[in-house]
Amino acid sequence: MSSPKHVHHVEPKDPDFEQKVRESFSRQTLMTTIGATMTRVEPGTVEIRMPYDASLTQQNGFIHGGIITSIVDSACGYAAFTLTPPNHDVLAVEFKVNLINPARGEEFVATAHVLKAGKNLSFCEGKVFAISEGHGPKLIAAMLSTIMSRMSD
Amino acid sequence: MSSPKHVHHVEPKDPDFEQKVRESFSRQTLMTTIGATMTRVEPGTVEIRMPYDASLTQQNGFIHGGIITSIVDSACGYAAFTLTPPNHDVLAVEFKVNLINPARGEEFVATAHVLKAGKNLSFCEGKVFAISEGHGPKLIAAMLSTIMSRMSD
Amino acid sequence: MSSPKHVHHVEPKDPDFEQKVRESFSRQTLMTTIGATMTRVEPGTVEIRMPYDASLTQQNGFIHGGIITSIVDSACGYAAFTLTPPNHDVLAVEFKVNLINPARGEEFVATAHVLKAGKNLSFCEGKVFAISEGHGPKLIAAMLSTIMSRMSD
Amino acid sequence: MSSPKHVHHVEPKDPDFEQKVRESFSRQTLMTTIGATMTRVEPGTVEIRMPYDASLTQQNGFIHGGIITSIVDSACGYAAFTLTPPNHDVLAVEFKVNLINPARGEEFVATAHVLKAGKNLSFCEGKVFAISEGHGPKLIAAMLSTIMSRMSD
Repeated sequence: MSSPKHVHHVEPKDPDFEQKVRESFSRQTLMTTIGATMTRVEPGTVEIRMPYDASLTQQNGFIHGGIITSIVDSACGYAAFTLTPPNHDVLAVEFKVNLINPARGEEFVATAHVLKAGKNLSFCEGKVFAISEGHGPKLIAAMLSTIMSRMSD
Repeated sequence: MSSPKHVHHVEPKDPDFEQKVRESFSRQTLMTTIGATMTRVEPGTVEIRMPYDASLTQQNGFIHGGIITSIVDSACGYAAFTLTPPNHDVLAVEFKVNLINPARGEEFVATAHVLKAGKNLSFCEGKVFAISEGHGPKLIAAMLSTIMSRMSD
Repeated sequence: MSSPKHVHHVEPKDPDFEQKVRESFSRQTLMTTIGATMTRVEPGTVEIRMPYDASLTQQNGFIHGGIITSIVDSACGYAAFTLTPPNHDVLAVEFKVNLINPARGEEFVATAHVLKAGKNLSFCEGKVFAISEGHGPKLIAAMLSTIMSRMSD
Repeated sequence: MSSPKHVHHVEPKDPDFEQKVRESFSRQTLMTTIGATMTRVEPGTVEIRMPYDASLTQQNGFIHGGIITSIVDSACGYAAFTLTPPNHDVLAVEFKVNLINPARGEEFVATAHVLKAGKNLSFCEGKVFAISEGHGPKLIAAMLSTIMSRMSD
């Protein structure tokens, strides 16, 4: 038997999913503070990019793990949000991050996709790549996360 | 720009990788105890399967999360082991598991592949699917794990 | 200011919490299979013990990480279950385990306590110690986990 | 038998541990950017505090999970660093964070302590509390993390 695929494509339950995701993202002041932009929004998939910035580093001059986490956490949360019904909000419950290579590069690209879009809980996985001129994208982080969805007030 | 791929194919550093992986697996008495078999060994990828067994369940009759963890942990560890040099041993440092759907089914398939094969640390991701007659494979768990590699005694 | 404590003591919402926990544990066939017993049940805290058994090992003769995970996952789930209202069931959503020292010893003790008992989600932390004659208990694993609670059918 | 304790007190291998920790922390530009300060450094334990800042929020006005992660990740890394020998550096390998309550409050306190200080790998746990006038500290996040230690160049 061939290996099963794990990414299933589902129909968004909210036809305005892209608008609501982009509007919510614009209210995340942290994303503006760190210069992050949302570069892709599709049902079950979101991509966020940010440039290197020397004000966001750890002791060796690499981007701090918490900032790399910020962009991939937002990517995972919004990937889940693309698949929730209208009038729902999402909130990250937990995530785990492997810091696979040092976060050096000119730009960082976080991509996330939904593994399961549940009624109350969604599960996402994310990856972050560093982009440097003259090199291919380098995997620097991987995330698995759980997102809670609920009726918004 | 198109999205970067995260799975890179690397050459095994040990030409006898399959033999050493299968030999080590045969020494994991737990795998025998739970009826698990290694059904695929390739550079950077391992697959382990186990049938449903009523002696391995939690309170609702589904396979216990710790057993699902056992097969995907072994798959991740051995995926890393396919890429280590000769005379090295591997040991799981940590893992995180999302239990995405209840572990009901006739058979469970854990697949793992290496995200990075480092000198001291390797990073793997794994998935577990439940197989039931008349249904497609269903994703029941996802793992991210860290594996330590070192010279064996 | 002194450091805040993180363990809060709460009243169980179900006066029969111990009975329901022990009854559910008795239905986890895996616990019987691996010889695990529940040795402490208090509001927000559960302890599970198991002896070493050569049929549950990984390649070096230590207890397999998935079995260590099994006892601390059950301990976390039942710690959460001590604090849920009557007619609710619990289900682990995810956990992360650090394998801190090799699981060698004569007996293994998993203890778990609740960090937050929420309406839908509870958060627990667990530790596993190895016990060997002539030595003090040795920390071999730590878990953080998320447990979902819902009305049972 | 009484429950074993999991926090062991060890002697620092570097008498200048506090100075090296504070010096490295001062080079984490992110900590300055977010207004975080190191308020406690002891062998195996570090505390970092940051005030609420509206430029660091997610869509609901709470502090973004990635920023909460940043302070507890730094606290864990530096807790490990207090116990490494001279001429070593530390690097986070991975962490898992449970977001237990929304990050609202006037100040956030991250505390971390070492579970095991190994030759190559250390394991830490951290907690983050929100402080609000008129309320006791509230647990908002818990972390388990793995830190790699190696000879610095």
